[in-house]
Amino acid sequence: MNAIEKLKNKNLEGKYICVGLDSDIDKIPSYLKEKNDPILEFNKAIIEACSNYAAAFKINFAFYEQYGYDGILTLEKTLKMIPKDLLTIADAKRGDISNTSQMYSKAILENLNFDSITINPYMGEDSVSPFLKDKDKLIFILALTSNPGALDFEKSILDNGLYLYQKVIEKVHQWNTKQNCGIVFGATKIDELQNNITKFGNLPVLLPGIGTQGGSLEDVIEVFKKSSRNDFLVNVSRGIIYKSNKNDFADVALNQLLELNSKINELLYN
Amino acid sequence: MNAIEKLKNKNLEGKYICVGLDSDIDKIPSYLKEKNDPILEFNKAIIEACSNYAAAFKINFAFYEQYGYDGILTLEKTLKMIPKDLLTIADAKRGDISNTSQMYSKAILENLNFDSITINPYMGEDSVSPFLKDKDKLIFILALTSNPGALDFEKSILDNGLYLYQKVIEKVHQWNTKQNCGIVFGATKIDELQNNITKFGNLPVLLPGIGTQGGSLEDVIEVFKKSSRNDFLVNVSRGIIYKSNKNDFADVALNQLLELNSKINELLYN
Repeated sequence: MNAIEKLKNKNLEGKYICVGLDSDIDKIPSYLKEKNDPILEFNKAIIEACSNYAAAFKINFAFYEQYGYDGILTLEKTLKMIPKDLLTIADAKRGDISNTSQMYSKAILENLNFDSITINPYMGEDSVSPFLKDKDKLIFILALTSNPGALDFEKSILDNGLYLYQKVIEKVHQWNTKQNCGIVFGATKIDELQNNITKFGNLPVLLPGIGTQGGSLEDVIEVFKKSSRNDFLVNVSRGIIYKSNKNDFADVALNQLLELNSKINELLYN
Repeated sequence: MNAIEKLKNKNLEGKYICVGLDSDIDKIPSYLKEKNDPILEFNKAIIEACSNYAAAFKINFAFYEQYGYDGILTLEKTLKMIPKDLLTIADAKRGDISNTSQMYSKAILENLNFDSITINPYMGEDSVSPFLKDKDKLIFILALTSNPGALDFEKSILDNGLYLYQKVIEKVHQWNTKQNCGIVFGATKIDELQNNITKFGNLPVLLPGIGTQGGSLEDVIEVFKKSSRNDFLVNVSRGIIYKSNKNDFADVALNQLLELNSKINELLYN
């Protein structure tokens, strides 16, 4: 089963939430800190609790890289614990000149064997294309991100009247010859989502920004419903995994996941 | 001694070359492959040969990440072998939402303790600012890169007539309140370098693209000479470290470094 099929299957099952494993030693329950690998124990509990109801897991590389090679080992072990029917997303935001992007692609999509990765398009086509070689992967390219800084460059207006992020979306369509591209679009940017969703075509959409960053789930789903689209992923990281920092953290995470996912289904189908 | 001082000292000594450690198991001399950590042995020989004559070493993270946690261990050991008077650059091209960029900054500038890092500005100010907290580091922000894809977005024309990369340079000046910013500008883009060098102000410039990528050292140095600027780094990776793939690779790398650096000094001062 390739990456796009995994996503579609989960969406067909009414599962839309991507659980973001932004796992941070300072935020996990204190009793775990006595364990040999506290982050791995934390991730294991979250994955076991949430796998049957999530659509995907997203691993935020920064949180693992901060621990050097120990962190990379934790990342690898975490990835192996995720059931094979769930999409695994490397939130790495890589992008470099061609021969270097090839190395990043080898590292993350081949060796680690993630289904999917987030890519920064700033350096253009030859920085992105090495990631697009395998039709069975899913490459989420940053369009309009959820953070305040998206105004600085992504929303720069070009001489043809388009925003830069709209040019990125146009290019992603051109690059999508293997039907393995998607886009990242911030759930905090509702007006832009509304105004651009018809331009997304059949590109899967990864939506960060719900919860801590302030995006409204209701508003986002309303836009997708109006466009009769139900192929997307709503990423929630801190809003699920840190909902409790006590022994019940995994149960509370599951409850939060179920609640968010039910809300999406209600909004989409009622 | 902070990062900017390291760079200035080397430039005052007439040293302008940044040696890029894009070390690849498929390209190093075959006899090294019998060693326990072939890449580390390779880097050790290059660093020992080149340290007295280089201005900086740049470690391209992709080449190490491809080996998972073993690669990160090699990266850490390599970094520790670089003499403290040379600038160390993490060529990682990171950039993410604020709390994630903070983690990358902690990983690379604090824990690994690199002097310097390359940053992708696409996501804007709050993705860059976490890297700028320490005045003793040097943050090279991508402006116009050396690759063909630079045309796709970096050279997009904005509604005010500026190129996107020129807006990035303007923003870098605004963000440079601690005097710890620099820019990456492709040595393959001579016309743009000529037309923009006065806009760089006192930002240190990291110039990739000489050698394999086709940039002309003579042309680049001519532009800096005309502008009476001698605070820059010319990065050369493959053109130095893979000049020989036999037992003499370190000597040949040194000779190549000396030759390139002599040429820069001749061009600048004759």
